[in-house]
Amino acid sequence: MTTSQPDGLSINLATVRAQCDLLQAVELCLAQGITAIAPWRDQVAKVGLAQAARAIRENGLQVTGLCRGGMFPAATPAGRQAAIDDNLRAIEEAVTLGADCLVLVVGGLPEGSKDIAGARAMVADGIMAILEPARSAGMPLAIEPLHPMYAAERACVNTLDQALDLCDALDPSREGGLGVAVDAYHVWWDPHLEAALRRAGERILAHHICDWLVPTRDLLLDRGMMGDGVIDLAGLRRSVEAAGFKGPQEVEIFSSENWWKRPPDEVIATCLERWRCHCQP
Amino acid sequence: MTTSQPDGLSINLATVRAQCDLLQAVELCLAQGITAIAPWRDQVAKVGLAQAARAIRENGLQVTGLCRGGMFPAATPAGRQAAIDDNLRAIEEAVTLGADCLVLVVGGLPEGSKDIAGARAMVADGIMAILEPARSAGMPLAIEPLHPMYAAERACVNTLDQALDLCDALDPSREGGLGVAVDAYHVWWDPHLEAALRRAGERILAHHICDWLVPTRDLLLDRGMMGDGVIDLAGLRRSVEAAGFKGPQEVEIFSSENWWKRPPDEVIATCLERWRCHCQP
Repeated sequence: MTTSQPDGLSINLATVRAQCDLLQAVELCLAQGITAIAPWRDQVAKVGLAQAARAIRENGLQVTGLCRGGMFPAATPAGRQAAIDDNLRAIEEAVTLGADCLVLVVGGLPEGSKDIAGARAMVADGIMAILEPARSAGMPLAIEPLHPMYAAERACVNTLDQALDLCDALDPSREGGLGVAVDAYHVWWDPHLEAALRRAGERILAHHICDWLVPTRDLLLDRGMMGDGVIDLAGLRRSVEAAGFKGPQEVEIFSSENWWKRPPDEVIATCLERWRCHCQP
Repeated sequence: MTTSQPDGLSINLATVRAQCDLLQAVELCLAQGITAIAPWRDQVAKVGLAQAARAIRENGLQVTGLCRGGMFPAATPAGRQAAIDDNLRAIEEAVTLGADCLVLVVGGLPEGSKDIAGARAMVADGIMAILEPARSAGMPLAIEPLHPMYAAERACVNTLDQALDLCDALDPSREGGLGVAVDAYHVWWDPHLEAALRRAGERILAHHICDWLVPTRDLLLDRGMMGDGVIDLAGLRRSVEAAGFKGPQEVEIFSSENWWKRPPDEVIATCLERWRCHCQP
């Protein structure tokens, strides 16, 4: 087996979210020999948690992550508690699906706030509140630093080093159960990326890929297929593997004007082909 | 004099670039008591360097920066030399205009390249090539870190710390003539911003302001007026002043669908009003 066999590839189901539901996406992946997926919670809910779990189990699929927990900051204590409660439900769902980790998109500024330091403190508090329950459930939490252009609305953790600082603060003795998701789209620009990956080491729990298009026409929904943009994905994979992570590369593409408009089997086939051409270390 | 007098405010003429030329913009600024501007080179060229310089001199205007030098990376040695030659001309123009500094937007990836580390090396080489000529001409160079969403196309220097690392590398004995421009839009999200500002100290040569809108509809041309977004501009100004920079705050707003469509006197009056309300330390 070489790393270009399909079992080194996972399809994050956001990549075909406009075209098919979880069960249809599973069938399309299996038809091309792909045996790892990463669903979103709304996709799981749509077909039902039990049915999603059964499809995953019966087909022997690896779930490289459940998207997503997080979204901790809120303007009120009740809002922050509601976020924690929702994360606890997400942990249960991730366990039911047998996911490798629950991905945390930590959240941005509360409504009306300009206090990003305060939001970051809320994120730390939120992860602290769910870390022991997650450990008890055997579900690792993967903090995903998002590109700084999402700092206001989606995630105020914006560099890999910042995510690792959170890991250090919340898990100082490295008991485990807390790590990071390294998404090429979010981190490729970082001048400290190489050093941060070495620092991350075994804390890398997931590796997401897609490409940065030039030009990028939308902040959220114009991610590129691997090879269509400027990210050195093969080089990044080399660094990720050197740091110690050998799990599948998970393709996650939000693309409202391009890939979400194509037949899903074509999209998945393209993911496989491009991953073979552009993402091998 | 308090800091809310108009002489603490500079208008970067990109803010009204769609509506008026440099000479018209100068008149509109003066009419509202604003005596500092920052023009772009194409705006200077349009009215002629000599005439622009005369309007600035005769009205006693402060030029808080000339935009812009930089754009160093290129696929060929000839392309890189052409960039250096153009920067030398920009230095001469900045001297003629009596600018406080030449702002460097350093450039992104060369056409077809995925080598951001290589682009960053080209930037260092380019600044090295123009630093002594700039010093001889008495024209400080201000490296402007741009938001990471511009890493591919406009600037591969993306954090204040990275810009300061460049300053350390190129001016290890702190002879001067090399520093940074701190633009709120580009740096507000940085978890290390406070520490980086303290580190920057006297290397801060310019302070640009505008606001980050939620949502942001275009990566380049949807910057917000101060107060309309999520940046704590008053807090940032406190940190900038604590670091040692007391010069004007320079409003630079690219806004193709809003502010560029309004009468320029209204835009400048709004800059003044919002700066008084939202940007005082």
